[in-house]
Amino acid sequence: MTRKIRSWIYSLSFVGVVAAGVVTASGAAGDSAHGSLALTFLWIAVILLAAKLGGLVEKFGQPAVLGELVIGVILGNLVLLGIHTFEPILEDGIIKFLAELGVVILLFQIGLESNVRQMKEVGMSAFLVAIIGVVLPFVLGTYVVGPWFMPGLEPAAYLFLGAALTATSVGITARVFKDLKKLHIPEAQIVLGAAVIDDVLGLVILAVVSAIVTVGAVSLGMIGWILAKAILFLVGSIVLGQLLAPWLGKMFAKIQTGIGMKFTLAVIVCLVFAYLAQVIGLAAIVGAFAAGLILDPVHFRYFKDPHVVRDIKKAMKDAHAKNITIKEVEDAIEHHSERHIEDLIEPLAYFLVPIFFVLTGMEVSLAALFDGRVILVALAISVVAILGKLVAGAVAGKGVNKWMIGIGMVPRGEVGLIFASIGKGLGVISDELFSVIVIMVIVTTLVTPPILNVMLKKHKV
Amino acid sequence: MTRKIRSWIYSLSFVGVVAAGVVTASGAAGDSAHGSLALTFLWIAVILLAAKLGGLVEKFGQPAVLGELVIGVILGNLVLLGIHTFEPILEDGIIKFLAELGVVILLFQIGLESNVRQMKEVGMSAFLVAIIGVVLPFVLGTYVVGPWFMPGLEPAAYLFLGAALTATSVGITARVFKDLKKLHIPEAQIVLGAAVIDDVLGLVILAVVSAIVTVGAVSLGMIGWILAKAILFLVGSIVLGQLLAPWLGKMFAKIQTGIGMKFTLAVIVCLVFAYLAQVIGLAAIVGAFAAGLILDPVHFRYFKDPHVVRDIKKAMKDAHAKNITIKEVEDAIEHHSERHIEDLIEPLAYFLVPIFFVLTGMEVSLAALFDGRVILVALAISVVAILGKLVAGAVAGKGVNKWMIGIGMVPRGEVGLIFASIGKGLGVISDELFSVIVIMVIVTTLVTPPILNVMLKKHKV
Repeated sequence: MTRKIRSWIYSLSFVGVVAAGVVTASGAAGDSAHGSLALTFLWIAVILLAAKLGGLVEKFGQPAVLGELVIGVILGNLVLLGIHTFEPILEDGIIKFLAELGVVILLFQIGLESNVRQMKEVGMSAFLVAIIGVVLPFVLGTYVVGPWFMPGLEPAAYLFLGAALTATSVGITARVFKDLKKLHIPEAQIVLGAAVIDDVLGLVILAVVSAIVTVGAVSLGMIGWILAKAILFLVGSIVLGQLLAPWLGKMFAKIQTGIGMKFTLAVIVCLVFAYLAQVIGLAAIVGAFAAGLILDPVHFRYFKDPHVVRDIKKAMKDAHAKNITIKEVEDAIEHHSERHIEDLIEPLAYFLVPIFFVLTGMEVSLAALFDGRVILVALAISVVAILGKLVAGAVAGKGVNKWMIGIGMVPRGEVGLIFASIGKGLGVISDELFSVIVIMVIVTTLVTPPILNVMLKKHKV
Repeated sequence: MTRKIRSWIYSLSFVGVVAAGVVTASGAAGDSAHGSLALTFLWIAVILLAAKLGGLVEKFGQPAVLGELVIGVILGNLVLLGIHTFEPILEDGIIKFLAELGVVILLFQIGLESNVRQMKEVGMSAFLVAIIGVVLPFVLGTYVVGPWFMPGLEPAAYLFLGAALTATSVGITARVFKDLKKLHIPEAQIVLGAAVIDDVLGLVILAVVSAIVTVGAVSLGMIGWILAKAILFLVGSIVLGQLLAPWLGKMFAKIQTGIGMKFTLAVIVCLVFAYLAQVIGLAAIVGAFAAGLILDPVHFRYFKDPHVVRDIKKAMKDAHAKNITIKEVEDAIEHHSERHIEDLIEPLAYFLVPIFFVLTGMEVSLAALFDGRVILVALAISVVAILGKLVAGAVAGKGVNKWMIGIGMVPRGEVGLIFASIGKGLGVISDELFSVIVIMVIVTTLVTPPILNVMLKKHKV
């Protein structure tokens, strides 16, 4: 037996063990409370396994998030083939909570990757691209393609469609530039800057739109108040955060200086802000983003990571470099070896974020697509989504490749999905419209990497 | 205004923000489904904040777990002062799930820290100490102090009391030796080895006792079957795991080689084993421990951590050590800089494990202690718990400090609490007995670090 065959047999037997678990699970409905907790363990394992299998799309140059969505769509639509095994996942309240927590953690991460100083440095170019890239798709979605292609829906549904068209996914765009080592070119800088501004504008729009739906407010004064509240919350958290965060870090460091404290402090701030945002009528993710924005690594300089330092010291010893400049090297390494707060949050995100995307995929009803009209509408809206961002790219300053900037802004990614799922949660977005938005996200996410890939490889630096 | 005063004002204002949140929360009962998710965010933040404040006990040389328990006891018993603010935490199903997941992750960690080879290397000494240290407290608890001091309970209650007396907490003991840099002395090695064996024996006892309670079986054949099943499961997972794990690692590494895959694969294995253990009638934590045991770092050699390598390379550059043996140093560092699977699981544990301990503390009813008899019983059982382990220490081989080994075995820590909380979940352990066990755990955990501290400082190496 060759090694290769044996390795496949082993792998298949693992999948078999999981499958056996799933079969046992589906036969054990109506379990005791304790048993159902264990069942939730199994469903989480199934979701994570599915997400990782979806990650195979990376082999074809596609972002992992796309694979997670697609595998979710497959799992959720196995009912069309008469397979009801995975239906309980959608009814599990705990998994729903974990998905919600996942998206909060994701926006916290995006906030952590941005920071206030960086946002100030973003030039006029990025600002213009961001504004046009938000306003144009929003107006087109809400007042043109929405009412044209899907007439008869309530106005709030069009608002959510427009909102879902505004966001740019920082993650996907940054990933493509990074993978090709082109993060430093001006086009990349403008796209990233604009994407960060887009995030903030998108979240403000989300807050306004959500509030309009919840409170039913459409008066200008009301919109103004919501807008003011959203901006006040963001600006307020940033100002308060800038004042508070350093002292907070110092105080907590007096209890413990380990990375456990660093991590826990960050999570506490994230959760409290998510809660407060919800209390004052904004989405929890707005709070999580604000929390990430104000937590700058510098506030965590009191916390050290003993693991890395230990490993490196051992490595230094092994390197037989003992008597040569070792002190210098050691000092410098010690300075750089603190584990960043982003790195600490990452495992939590690995655990929770895929649950959100796979679950979002599972909520897509392929049955809705048997209607040729829905597919046409989805494609039309995707075209609008792409055109809106290409026009935005055209307002970028001189001396840069405007097409590249436009294409870089196209992927809607996670933020668009978050809008759709909040709209669905509020009962504003129908299954049909939800499917249309998800298809738009899939299309915009799918077309960007290959096109950008070709453009960047032509690009000479 | 001095810096110190100002830093306190800032800290207090943060606590104020959290407090304001809590007050808002307690006024907002009967929220919508979406709102109650946000409320759960707040409760998690409160629990984590409380846990970290409890961590202040480390300043007094006590392990953090003790502080988490004590702060939980305080939060849970504020009702005695008429403060009902935190009562909803105990009724939140999602927090209960997170606590359960936390203890699964904790046992997975303990399993990861042990491994099969290490367990084989543990000498006869450690084995004898472990056996005596399990059998003696179990027999004393089940047949002597239990029936003597708390007569009239059902036999299963005494079984759980005995079981809770068996376990040694690896974490606390190892921590004390490590903090004083004495992990290498033979006494430390024997205690750690015995503690690992204790974990396994304890888990087998837990499986047997749980099954007796659930199935109501007391026949010898039945016990034998449960014992066989437990051992078969453990041995089976180990054998299967040793065969499967390397291939599994290789296969998944073909999808992705990042630390995300490494982390996710480990979590999937942990959750699937936890589920399977539950399905065949063992506790979920037995499965999680087995999963940790079989996942040896070596199976993850296909996964690399780009962050650490990047940071180190930058550090090397800054160190001005450019042209001197830098290649050698770099190679050695790259070899050592892979982030261990334990380090990746750690943040998840930081998030979930304190929820278990704070919640366990909250379930302690101080009202039960107004009864002087209960306090006396708790103290009597604590004395038995300590004596049982001291006798176990006496059977250690020659040339070592037997008292030190005995004392090192004393803390019951998390495993004792897990037994108590499972017993409570099964309805076998009354509030009174639960409180007695928690007090025993607190006492044994509290006395160990200071005594061991003094002994180790006298110890000359």
